[in-house]
Amino acid sequence: MIIVKIGGGSEINIAGIIQDLSGIDEQYIIVHGANALRDKLAEDLGQPKQVITSVKGYTSVYSDEKLLDVMMMAYAGLRNKRIVELCHQHGINAVGLTGLDGKMVQGKRNQGIRVHRGGKLKIVRDYSGKPRAVNGPLLQLLLDNGYVPVLTVPIIDEQNAAINTENDDVVRVLQQTLQADTVINLIEAPGLLEDKDDASSLIENISPLELEAREQQVEGRMKRKMLAVRKLFEHGATKVVISDGRAEHPVKDALAGKGTVIA
Amino acid sequence: MIIVKIGGGSEINIAGIIQDLSGIDEQYIIVHGANALRDKLAEDLGQPKQVITSVKGYTSVYSDEKLLDVMMMAYAGLRNKRIVELCHQHGINAVGLTGLDGKMVQGKRNQGIRVHRGGKLKIVRDYSGKPRAVNGPLLQLLLDNGYVPVLTVPIIDEQNAAINTENDDVVRVLQQTLQADTVINLIEAPGLLEDKDDASSLIENISPLELEAREQQVEGRMKRKMLAVRKLFEHGATKVVISDGRAEHPVKDALAGKGTVIA
Repeated sequence: MIIVKIGGGSEINIAGIIQDLSGIDEQYIIVHGANALRDKLAEDLGQPKQVITSVKGYTSVYSDEKLLDVMMMAYAGLRNKRIVELCHQHGINAVGLTGLDGKMVQGKRNQGIRVHRGGKLKIVRDYSGKPRAVNGPLLQLLLDNGYVPVLTVPIIDEQNAAINTENDDVVRVLQQTLQADTVINLIEAPGLLEDKDDASSLIENISPLELEAREQQVEGRMKRKMLAVRKLFEHGATKVVISDGRAEHPVKDALAGKGTVIA
Repeated sequence: MIIVKIGGGSEINIAGIIQDLSGIDEQYIIVHGANALRDKLAEDLGQPKQVITSVKGYTSVYSDEKLLDVMMMAYAGLRNKRIVELCHQHGINAVGLTGLDGKMVQGKRNQGIRVHRGGKLKIVRDYSGKPRAVNGPLLQLLLDNGYVPVLTVPIIDEQNAAINTENDDVVRVLQQTLQADTVINLIEAPGLLEDKDDASSLIENISPLELEAREQQVEGRMKRKMLAVRKLFEHGATKVVISDGRAEHPVKDALAGKGTVIA
Protein backbone atom coordinates (compact mmCIF):
# COMPACT_ATOMS: atom_id res chain seq x y z
CA MET A 1 0.00 0.00 0.00
CA ILE A 2 1.21 3.47 -0.96
CA ILE A 3 -0.29 6.80 0.12
CA VAL A 4 0.38 9.50 -2.47
CA LYS A 5 -0.04 13.06 -1.25
CA ILE A 6 -0.24 15.66 -4.02
CA GLY A 7 0.52 19.22 -2.90
CA GLY A 8 -1.83 22.05 -3.75
CA GLY A 9 0.69 24.37 -5.39
CA SER A 10 0.09 25.78 -8.84
CA GLU A 11 3.20 24.18 -10.39
CA ILE A 12 2.46 20.57 -9.44
CA ASN A 13 2.46 18.33 -12.55
CA ILE A 14 -0.81 16.51 -11.91
CA ALA A 15 -0.94 14.96 -15.38
CA GLY A 16 2.54 13.47 -14.90
CA ILE A 17 1.61 12.13 -11.47
CA ILE A 18 -1.54 10.39 -12.70
CA GLN A 19 0.30 8.97 -15.72
CA ASP A 20 2.97 7.54 -13.41
CA LEU A 21 0.35 6.08 -11.07
CA SER A 22 -1.36 4.26 -13.95
CA GLY A 23 1.80 2.11 -14.27
CA ILE A 24 1.86 1.02 -10.64
CA ASP A 25 0.77 -2.49 -9.63
CA GLU A 26 0.62 -1.91 -5.90
CA GLN A 27 -2.54 -0.66 -4.18
CA TYR A 28 -2.55 3.09 -3.46
CA ILE A 29 -4.72 5.99 -2.45
CA ILE A 30 -4.40 9.66 -3.33
CA VAL A 31 -4.74 12.66 -1.02
CA HIS A 32 -4.59 16.05 -2.70
CA GLY A 33 -4.54 19.74 -1.87
CA ALA A 34 -5.67 22.77 -3.87
CA ASN A 35 -4.45 25.78 -1.90
CA ALA A 36 -3.25 27.78 -4.92
CA LEU A 37 -6.60 27.19 -6.62
CA ARG A 38 -8.49 28.12 -3.45
CA ASP A 39 -6.53 31.36 -3.02
CA LYS A 40 -7.09 32.33 -6.65
CA LEU A 41 -10.81 31.55 -6.45
CA ALA A 42 -11.16 33.51 -3.19
CA GLU A 43 -9.41 36.47 -4.85
CA ASP A 44 -11.59 36.21 -7.96
CA LEU A 45 -14.69 36.19 -5.76
CA GLY A 46 -13.47 39.21 -3.80
CA GLN A 47 -13.00 37.19 -0.61
CA PRO A 48 -9.21 37.14 -0.13
CA LYS A 49 -8.15 34.84 2.68
CA GLN A 50 -7.77 36.32 6.14
CA VAL A 51 -4.83 35.33 8.26
CA ILE A 52 -5.17 35.59 12.03
CA THR A 53 -2.31 35.85 14.49
CA SER A 54 -2.68 34.31 17.92
CA VAL A 55 -1.39 36.04 21.05
CA LYS A 56 1.47 33.54 20.98
CA GLY A 57 2.43 34.74 17.50
CA TYR A 58 1.23 31.77 15.44
CA THR A 59 -0.50 32.61 12.16
CA SER A 60 -3.26 30.60 10.50
CA VAL A 61 -5.85 30.96 7.76
CA TYR A 62 -9.18 32.06 9.21
CA SER A 63 -11.62 29.38 8.02
CA ASP A 64 -15.03 30.99 8.31
CA GLU A 65 -18.15 29.64 6.60
CA LYS A 66 -17.38 31.56 3.40
CA LEU A 67 -13.85 30.20 3.21
CA LEU A 68 -15.27 26.69 3.68
CA ASP A 69 -17.61 27.37 0.74
CA VAL A 70 -14.62 28.38 -1.38
CA MET A 71 -12.69 25.31 -0.19
CA MET A 72 -15.54 23.03 -1.17
CA MET A 73 -15.54 24.59 -4.63
CA ALA A 74 -11.77 24.44 -5.13
CA TYR A 75 -10.81 21.18 -3.38
CA ALA A 76 -13.93 18.99 -3.50
CA GLY A 77 -15.27 20.48 -6.72
CA LEU A 78 -12.82 21.55 -9.38
CA ARG A 79 -9.54 19.94 -8.31
CA ASN A 80 -10.97 16.65 -7.05
CA LYS A 81 -13.21 16.06 -10.06
CA ARG A 82 -10.57 17.01 -12.63
CA ILE A 83 -8.15 14.56 -10.95
CA VAL A 84 -10.82 11.83 -10.97
CA GLU A 85 -11.49 12.53 -14.67
CA LEU A 86 -7.76 12.34 -15.45
CA CYS A 87 -7.51 9.07 -13.52
CA HIS A 88 -10.23 7.45 -15.64
CA GLN A 89 -8.46 8.70 -18.77
CA HIS A 90 -5.45 6.70 -17.57
CA GLY A 91 -7.44 3.62 -16.64
CA ILE A 92 -7.46 4.32 -12.89
CA ASN A 93 -10.88 3.57 -11.38
CA ALA A 94 -10.97 6.62 -9.12
CA VAL A 95 -13.67 7.68 -6.65
CA GLY A 96 -13.27 11.22 -5.31
CA LEU A 97 -14.36 11.84 -1.74
CA THR A 98 -13.99 14.47 0.96
CA GLY A 99 -13.77 13.69 4.64
CA LEU A 100 -17.51 14.47 4.83
CA ASP A 101 -18.55 11.63 2.53
CA GLY A 102 -19.51 8.61 4.62
CA LYS A 103 -17.64 10.49 7.40
CA MET A 104 -14.45 9.32 5.71
CA VAL A 105 -12.24 11.58 7.85
CA GLN A 106 -13.56 12.46 11.29
CA GLY A 107 -12.00 15.21 13.37
CA LYS A 108 -12.34 17.55 16.30
CA ARG A 109 -12.96 21.24 15.82
CA ASN A 110 -10.44 23.65 17.33
CA GLN A 111 -11.69 25.33 20.50
CA GLY A 112 -10.62 28.76 19.35
CA ILE A 113 -7.59 30.97 19.02
CA ARG A 114 -6.75 33.75 21.49
CA VAL A 115 -6.21 36.97 19.58
CA HIS A 116 -5.87 40.67 20.33
CA ARG A 117 -8.79 42.66 18.89
CA GLY A 118 -9.06 46.39 19.52
CA GLY A 119 -6.92 46.19 22.63
CA LYS A 120 -8.94 43.30 24.07
CA LEU A 121 -8.23 39.60 24.36
CA LYS A 122 -10.77 37.61 22.34
CA ILE A 123 -11.34 33.98 21.47
CA VAL A 124 -11.89 33.53 17.73
CA ARG A 125 -13.35 30.19 16.67
CA ASP A 126 -13.38 29.14 13.05
CA TYR A 127 -14.21 25.96 11.13
CA SER A 128 -10.85 24.25 11.49
CA GLY A 129 -9.62 21.31 13.48
CA LYS A 130 -7.64 18.11 13.64
CA PRO A 131 -8.50 14.74 12.11
CA ARG A 132 -8.79 11.89 14.61
CA ALA A 133 -9.95 8.83 12.66
CA VAL A 134 -10.94 7.57 9.24
CA ASN A 135 -13.84 5.38 8.12
CA GLY A 136 -11.69 2.27 7.64
CA PRO A 137 -14.54 -0.03 6.52
CA LEU A 138 -15.60 2.37 3.71
CA LEU A 139 -11.98 2.81 2.62
CA GLN A 140 -11.50 -0.97 2.57
CA LEU A 141 -14.82 -1.52 0.78
CA LEU A 142 -13.68 0.75 -2.06
CA LEU A 143 -10.15 -0.73 -2.23
CA ASP A 144 -11.43 -4.34 -2.13
CA ASN A 145 -13.71 -3.57 -5.06
CA GLY A 146 -10.95 -2.11 -7.20
CA TYR A 147 -11.58 1.60 -6.64
CA VAL A 148 -8.84 4.13 -5.95
CA PRO A 149 -10.00 6.67 -3.35
CA VAL A 150 -9.01 10.25 -4.16
CA LEU A 151 -9.40 12.17 -0.91
CA THR A 152 -9.40 15.82 0.02
CA VAL A 153 -10.63 18.28 2.63
CA PRO A 154 -12.93 19.34 4.26
CA ILE A 155 -13.33 16.75 6.98
CA ILE A 156 -16.24 16.31 9.42
CA ASP A 157 -16.18 17.31 13.08
CA GLU A 158 -17.87 15.81 16.16
CA GLN A 159 -21.00 17.96 15.53
CA ASN A 160 -21.07 16.82 11.86
CA ALA A 161 -19.90 20.21 10.60
CA ALA A 162 -17.42 20.61 7.77
CA ILE A 163 -14.02 21.79 8.99
CA ASN A 164 -10.72 22.67 7.35
CA THR A 165 -7.57 20.81 8.35
CA GLU A 166 -4.00 20.14 7.22
CA ASN A 167 -3.60 17.44 4.58
CA ASP A 168 -0.44 16.26 6.38
CA ASP A 169 -2.67 15.41 9.33
CA VAL A 170 -5.16 13.63 7.05
CA VAL A 171 -2.30 11.50 5.74
CA ARG A 172 -1.31 10.70 9.32
CA VAL A 173 -4.77 9.38 10.31
CA LEU A 174 -5.01 7.46 7.03
CA GLN A 175 -1.68 5.87 7.87
CA GLN A 176 -2.99 4.82 11.31
CA THR A 177 -5.64 2.77 9.54
CA LEU A 178 -3.95 1.72 6.30
CA GLN A 179 -0.44 1.03 7.64
CA ALA A 180 1.03 1.80 4.21
CA ASP A 181 4.65 0.79 3.56
CA THR A 182 5.40 3.88 1.53
CA VAL A 183 4.18 7.46 1.75
CA ILE A 184 5.03 9.77 -1.16
CA ASN A 185 4.71 13.50 -0.58
CA LEU A 186 4.87 15.56 -3.78
CA ILE A 187 5.71 19.21 -3.19
CA GLU A 188 6.96 22.28 -5.06
CA ALA A 189 10.62 21.73 -4.15
CA PRO A 190 13.21 19.03 -4.89
CA GLY A 191 12.59 17.58 -1.40
CA LEU A 192 13.57 18.72 2.07
CA LEU A 193 16.21 21.42 1.88
CA GLU A 194 18.91 22.32 4.44
CA ASP A 195 18.34 25.94 3.40
CA LYS A 196 14.80 26.56 2.15
CA ASP A 197 16.07 29.32 -0.17
CA ASP A 198 18.71 27.10 -1.77
CA ALA A 199 17.31 24.42 -4.11
CA SER A 200 20.74 22.75 -4.25
CA SER A 201 20.75 22.04 -0.51
CA LEU A 202 18.64 18.89 -0.87
CA ILE A 203 18.79 16.46 2.01
CA GLU A 204 18.94 13.14 0.16
CA ASN A 205 18.60 10.75 3.06
CA ILE A 206 17.39 10.94 6.60
CA SER A 207 17.15 8.03 9.00
CA PRO A 208 13.85 7.88 10.88
CA LEU A 209 15.93 8.00 14.05
CA GLU A 210 17.29 11.43 13.09
CA LEU A 211 13.86 12.97 12.69
CA GLU A 212 13.39 14.09 16.28
CA ALA A 213 16.79 15.80 16.39
CA ARG A 214 16.12 17.56 13.07
CA GLU A 215 12.72 18.66 14.34
CA GLN A 216 14.52 20.64 17.05
CA GLN A 217 16.80 22.35 14.49
CA VAL A 218 14.11 23.71 12.17
CA GLU A 219 11.25 26.17 12.57
CA GLY A 220 7.66 26.93 11.63
CA ARG A 221 6.08 24.94 8.86
CA MET A 222 9.12 22.68 8.43
CA LYS A 223 9.01 21.71 12.10
CA ARG A 224 5.43 20.58 11.69
CA LYS A 225 6.36 18.64 8.55
CA MET A 226 9.13 16.80 10.43
CA LEU A 227 6.71 15.91 13.21
CA ALA A 228 4.17 14.69 10.64
CA VAL A 229 6.79 12.44 9.02
CA ARG A 230 7.88 11.04 12.38
CA LYS A 231 4.27 10.09 13.15
CA LEU A 232 4.08 8.11 9.89
CA PHE A 233 6.88 5.83 11.09
CA GLU A 234 5.12 5.40 14.42
CA HIS A 235 2.20 4.04 12.37
CA GLY A 236 4.06 1.44 10.34
CA ALA A 237 5.60 3.30 7.40
CA THR A 238 8.96 1.91 6.31
CA LYS A 239 9.67 4.60 3.72
CA VAL A 240 8.61 8.23 3.30
CA VAL A 241 9.75 10.07 0.17
CA ILE A 242 9.38 13.84 -0.17
CA SER A 243 9.84 14.55 -3.83
CA ASP A 244 9.44 17.16 -6.57
CA GLY A 245 5.84 17.31 -7.79
CA ARG A 246 6.89 19.63 -10.63
CA ALA A 247 9.06 17.00 -12.36
CA GLU A 248 8.08 15.22 -15.57
CA HIS A 249 7.61 11.93 -13.68
CA PRO A 250 7.07 12.82 -10.03
CA VAL A 251 5.96 9.36 -8.81
CA LYS A 252 8.55 7.40 -10.82
CA ASP A 253 11.21 9.74 -9.44
CA ALA A 254 9.97 9.29 -5.90
CA LEU A 255 9.91 5.49 -6.20
CA ALA A 256 13.43 5.61 -7.70
CA GLY A 257 14.65 7.47 -4.63
CA LYS A 258 14.89 11.01 -6.01
CA GLY A 259 14.17 13.70 -3.45
CA THR A 260 14.43 13.17 0.28
CA VAL A 261 14.18 9.52 1.28
CA ILE A 262 13.45 8.79 4.90
CA ALA A 263 13.88 5.07 5.46
CA MET B 1 -36.70 2.36 -3.19
CA ILE B 2 -37.32 6.08 -3.73
CA ILE B 3 -35.36 8.40 -6.01
CA VAL B 4 -35.50 11.99 -4.75
CA LYS B 5 -34.57 14.64 -7.27
CA ILE B 6 -33.86 18.07 -5.79
CA GLY B 7 -34.09 20.94 -8.26
CA GLY B 8 -31.29 23.46 -8.53
CA GLY B 9 -33.37 26.61 -8.05
CA SER B 10 -32.43 29.18 -5.44
CA GLU B 11 -35.70 28.86 -3.49
CA ILE B 12 -35.57 25.11 -2.88
CA ASN B 13 -35.81 24.34 0.86
CA ILE B 14 -32.90 21.92 1.12
CA ALA B 15 -32.90 21.90 4.93
CA GLY B 16 -36.59 20.92 4.95
CA ILE B 17 -36.00 18.17 2.40
CA ILE B 18 -33.11 16.61 4.33
CA GLN B 19 -35.06 16.84 7.59
CA ASP B 20 -38.00 15.04 5.97
CA LEU B 21 -35.73 12.36 4.50
CA SER B 22 -34.23 11.61 7.92
CA GLY B 23 -37.65 10.31 8.97
CA ILE B 24 -38.03 7.86 6.09
CA ASP B 25 -37.54 4.12 6.60
CA GLU B 26 -37.43 3.11 2.95
CA GLN B 27 -34.15 3.05 0.99
CA TYR B 28 -33.59 6.13 -1.17
CA ILE B 29 -31.01 8.00 -3.17
CA ILE B 30 -30.71 11.73 -3.86
CA VAL B 31 -30.00 13.46 -7.17
CA HIS B 32 -29.55 17.21 -7.00
CA GLY B 33 -29.03 20.20 -9.24
CA ALA B 34 -27.38 23.57 -8.59
CA ASN B 35 -28.18 25.68 -11.63
CA ALA B 36 -28.95 28.90 -9.72
CA LEU B 37 -25.68 28.53 -7.82
CA ARG B 38 -23.78 27.78 -11.03
CA ASP B 39 -25.23 30.84 -12.77
CA LYS B 40 -24.39 33.09 -9.82
CA LEU B 41 -20.84 31.73 -9.58
CA ALA B 42 -20.30 32.13 -13.32
CA GLU B 43 -21.50 35.73 -13.06
CA ASP B 44 -19.30 36.42 -10.03
CA LEU B 45 -16.30 35.02 -11.94
CA GLY B 46 -17.10 37.15 -14.96
CA GLN B 47 -17.99 34.14 -17.11
CA PRO B 48 -21.75 34.48 -17.67
CA LYS B 49 -23.26 31.44 -19.35
CA GLN B 50 -23.51 31.46 -23.12
CA VAL B 51 -26.65 30.18 -24.75
CA ILE B 52 -26.41 28.84 -28.30
CA THR B 53 -29.27 28.52 -30.73
CA SER B 54 -29.28 25.69 -33.24
CA VAL B 55 -30.41 26.19 -36.85
CA LYS B 56 -33.62 24.41 -35.85
CA GLY B 57 -34.25 27.04 -33.18
CA TYR B 58 -33.45 25.02 -30.06
CA THR B 59 -31.48 26.83 -27.36
CA SER B 60 -29.00 25.24 -24.97
CA VAL B 61 -26.29 26.27 -22.52
CA TYR B 62 -22.89 26.14 -24.17
CA SER B 63 -20.87 23.82 -21.91
CA ASP B 64 -17.25 24.62 -22.72
CA GLU B 65 -14.35 23.60 -20.50
CA LYS B 66 -14.69 26.74 -18.36
CA LEU B 67 -18.38 26.14 -17.77
CA LEU B 68 -17.55 22.57 -16.75
CA ASP B 69 -15.04 23.98 -14.23
CA VAL B 70 -17.76 26.23 -12.80
CA MET B 71 -20.19 23.29 -12.74
CA MET B 72 -17.70 21.17 -10.82
CA MET B 73 -17.34 23.97 -8.28
CA ALA B 74 -21.07 24.63 -7.90
CA TYR B 75 -22.59 21.13 -8.22
CA ALA B 76 -19.85 18.71 -7.13
CA GLY B 77 -18.17 21.14 -4.74
CA LEU B 78 -20.34 23.55 -2.81
CA ARG B 79 -23.87 22.19 -3.25
CA ASN B 80 -23.03 18.48 -3.03
CA LYS B 81 -20.80 18.82 0.03
CA ARG B 82 -23.18 21.12 1.91
CA ILE B 83 -26.01 18.62 1.27
CA VAL B 84 -23.79 15.74 2.48
CA GLU B 85 -22.89 17.75 5.61
CA LEU B 86 -26.58 18.49 6.27
CA CYS B 87 -27.41 14.78 5.80
CA HIS B 88 -24.93 13.76 8.49
CA GLN B 89 -26.35 16.41 10.80
CA HIS B 90 -29.69 14.60 10.40
CA GLY B 91 -28.23 11.12 10.83
CA ILE B 92 -28.23 10.27 7.13
CA ASN B 93 -25.01 8.46 6.17
CA ALA B 94 -24.53 10.27 2.87
CA VAL B 95 -21.78 9.80 0.28
CA GLY B 96 -21.64 12.52 -2.38
CA LEU B 97 -20.61 11.48 -5.87
CA THR B 98 -20.65 12.84 -9.39
CA GLY B 99 -21.11 10.68 -12.47
CA LEU B 100 -17.30 10.72 -12.81
CA ASP B 101 -16.64 8.92 -9.54
CA GLY B 102 -16.23 5.22 -10.22
CA LYS B 103 -17.89 6.09 -13.56
CA MET B 104 -21.15 6.22 -11.66
CA VAL B 105 -23.05 7.73 -14.60
CA GLN B 106 -21.74 6.95 -18.07
CA GLY B 107 -22.89 8.83 -21.14
CA LYS B 108 -22.29 9.70 -24.75
CA ARG B 109 -21.09 13.14 -25.75
CA ASN B 110 -23.25 15.08 -28.18
CA GLN B 111 -21.84 15.15 -31.70
CA GLY B 112 -22.32 18.87 -32.08
CA ILE B 113 -24.98 21.46 -32.76
CA ARG B 114 -25.46 23.11 -36.16
CA VAL B 115 -25.43 26.87 -35.71
CA HIS B 116 -25.22 29.96 -37.90
CA ARG B 117 -21.99 31.90 -37.28
CA GLY B 118 -21.18 34.98 -39.34
CA GLY B 119 -23.42 33.87 -42.17
CA LYS B 120 -21.90 30.37 -42.29
CA LEU B 121 -23.21 27.02 -41.07
CA LYS B 122 -20.93 25.63 -38.36
CA ILE B 123 -20.90 22.61 -36.07
CA VAL B 124 -20.27 23.63 -32.46
CA ARG B 125 -19.34 20.81 -30.10
CA ASP B 126 -19.34 21.31 -26.35
CA TYR B 127 -18.96 19.07 -23.32
CA SER B 128 -22.54 17.92 -23.07
CA GLY B 129 -24.29 14.67 -23.75
CA LYS B 130 -26.76 12.02 -22.66
CA PRO B 131 -26.40 9.45 -19.89
CA ARG B 132 -26.65 5.82 -21.02
CA ALA B 133 -25.91 3.68 -17.97
CA VAL B 134 -25.00 3.77 -14.31
CA ASN B 135 -22.46 1.77 -12.32
CA GLY B 136 -25.05 -0.49 -10.69
CA PRO B 137 -22.57 -2.57 -8.66
CA LEU B 138 -21.05 0.55 -7.01
CA LEU B 139 -24.51 1.95 -6.29
CA GLN B 140 -25.59 -1.37 -4.77
CA LEU B 141 -22.34 -1.67 -2.79
CA LEU B 142 -23.01 1.68 -1.15
CA LEU B 143 -26.72 0.99 -0.52
CA ASP B 144 -26.03 -2.49 0.88
CA ASN B 145 -23.55 -0.99 3.33
CA GLY B 146 -25.97 1.62 4.61
CA TYR B 147 -24.80 4.64 2.64
CA VAL B 148 -27.13 7.09 0.90
CA PRO B 149 -25.67 8.15 -2.47
CA VAL B 150 -26.05 11.88 -3.19
CA LEU B 151 -25.48 12.23 -6.92
CA THR B 152 -24.94 15.15 -9.22
CA VAL B 153 -23.42 16.13 -12.57
CA PRO B 154 -21.04 16.07 -14.40
CA ILE B 155 -21.14 12.56 -15.83
CA ILE B 156 -18.42 10.74 -17.79
CA ASP B 157 -18.44 10.19 -21.56
CA GLU B 158 -17.10 7.34 -23.71
CA GLN B 159 -13.66 9.04 -23.89
CA ASN B 160 -13.66 9.46 -20.08
CA ALA B 161 -14.23 13.20 -20.32
CA ALA B 162 -16.52 15.11 -17.97
CA ILE B 163 -19.74 16.21 -19.66
CA ASN B 164 -22.80 18.18 -18.64
CA THR B 165 -26.22 16.58 -18.90
CA GLU B 166 -29.82 17.01 -17.72
CA ASN B 167 -30.57 15.68 -14.24
CA ASP B 168 -33.93 14.41 -15.53
CA ASP B 169 -31.95 12.09 -17.80
CA VAL B 170 -29.70 11.01 -14.92
CA VAL B 171 -32.81 10.07 -12.95
CA ARG B 172 -34.04 8.07 -15.96
CA VAL B 173 -30.86 5.92 -16.20
CA LEU B 174 -30.83 5.48 -12.43
CA GLN B 175 -34.39 4.22 -12.67
CA GLN B 176 -33.37 1.69 -15.37
CA THR B 177 -31.02 0.13 -12.82
CA LEU B 178 -32.75 0.74 -9.49
CA GLN B 179 -36.37 0.14 -10.56
CA ALA B 180 -37.57 2.44 -7.79
CA ASP B 181 -41.28 2.39 -6.91
CA THR B 182 -41.47 6.09 -6.31
CA VAL B 183 -39.71 9.05 -7.90
CA ILE B 184 -40.09 12.44 -6.20
CA ASN B 185 -39.21 15.50 -8.23
CA LEU B 186 -38.93 18.68 -6.13
CA ILE B 187 -39.20 21.88 -8.16
CA GLU B 188 -39.90 25.60 -7.72
CA ALA B 189 -43.62 25.29 -8.46
CA PRO B 190 -46.59 23.56 -6.79
CA GLY B 191 -46.31 20.77 -9.37
CA LEU B 192 -47.21 20.54 -13.06
CA LEU B 193 -49.38 23.48 -14.04
CA GLU B 194 -51.97 23.69 -16.82
CA ASP B 195 -50.79 27.27 -17.32
CA LYS B 196 -47.17 27.77 -16.30
CA ASP B 197 -47.91 31.39 -15.33
CA ASP B 198 -50.81 30.46 -13.08
CA ALA B 199 -49.78 28.75 -9.83
CA SER B 200 -53.41 27.85 -9.14
CA SER B 201 -53.68 25.70 -12.28
CA LEU B 202 -52.08 22.68 -10.60
CA ILE B 203 -52.70 19.34 -12.26
CA GLU B 204 -53.32 17.13 -9.24
CA ASN B 205 -53.47 13.76 -10.93
CA ILE B 206 -52.36 12.30 -14.21
CA SER B 207 -52.65 8.68 -15.20
CA PRO B 208 -49.46 7.28 -16.75
CA LEU B 209 -51.60 6.42 -19.79
CA GLU B 210 -52.38 10.11 -20.34
CA LEU B 211 -48.71 11.14 -20.46
CA GLU B 212 -48.22 10.63 -24.18
CA ALA B 213 -51.30 12.66 -25.08
CA ARG B 214 -50.23 15.47 -22.74
CA GLU B 215 -46.74 15.42 -24.22
CA GLN B 216 -48.31 16.40 -27.54
CA GLN B 217 -50.20 19.33 -25.97
CA VAL B 218 -47.25 21.07 -24.30
CA GLU B 219 -44.07 22.68 -25.56
CA GLY B 220 -40.37 23.14 -24.90
CA ARG B 221 -39.03 22.24 -21.48
CA MET B 222 -42.37 20.87 -20.30
CA LYS B 223 -42.55 18.52 -23.27
CA ARG B 224 -39.18 17.06 -22.30
CA LYS B 225 -40.30 16.73 -18.68
CA MET B 226 -43.39 14.76 -19.77
CA LEU B 227 -41.23 12.45 -21.86
CA ALA B 228 -38.83 11.98 -18.93
CA VAL B 229 -41.73 11.03 -16.63
CA ARG B 230 -43.15 8.59 -19.20
CA LYS B 231 -39.76 6.84 -19.39
CA LEU B 232 -39.78 6.33 -15.60
CA PHE B 233 -42.94 4.25 -15.88
CA GLU B 234 -41.38 2.23 -18.70
CA HIS B 235 -38.64 1.38 -16.17
CA GLY B 236 -40.81 0.14 -13.35
CA ALA B 237 -41.95 3.23 -11.46
CA THR B 238 -45.44 2.95 -10.00
CA LYS B 239 -45.64 6.54 -8.74
CA VAL B 240 -44.01 9.81 -9.78
CA VAL B 241 -44.73 12.91 -7.70
CA ILE B 242 -43.78 16.38 -8.89
CA SER B 243 -43.99 18.57 -5.84
CA ASP B 244 -43.09 21.96 -4.37
CA GLY B 245 -39.47 22.03 -3.19
CA ARG B 246 -40.05 25.42 -1.56
CA ALA B 247 -42.55 24.09 1.00
CA GLU B 248 -41.78 23.62 4.69
CA HIS B 249 -41.88 19.83 4.31
CA PRO B 250 -41.34 19.06 0.63
CA VAL B 251 -40.81 15.29 0.94
CA LYS B 252 -43.60 14.74 3.48
CA ASP B 253 -45.92 16.71 1.19
CA ALA B 254 -44.89 14.66 -1.85
CA LEU B 255 -45.43 11.37 -0.02
CA ALA B 256 -48.83 12.64 1.16
CA GLY B 257 -49.83 13.28 -2.43
CA LYS B 258 -49.46 17.06 -2.60
CA GLY B 259 -48.42 18.34 -5.99
CA THR B 260 -48.88 16.40 -9.20
CA VAL B 261 -49.22 12.67 -8.64
CA ILE B 262 -48.74 10.44 -11.64
CA ALA B 263 -49.77 6.92 -10.67
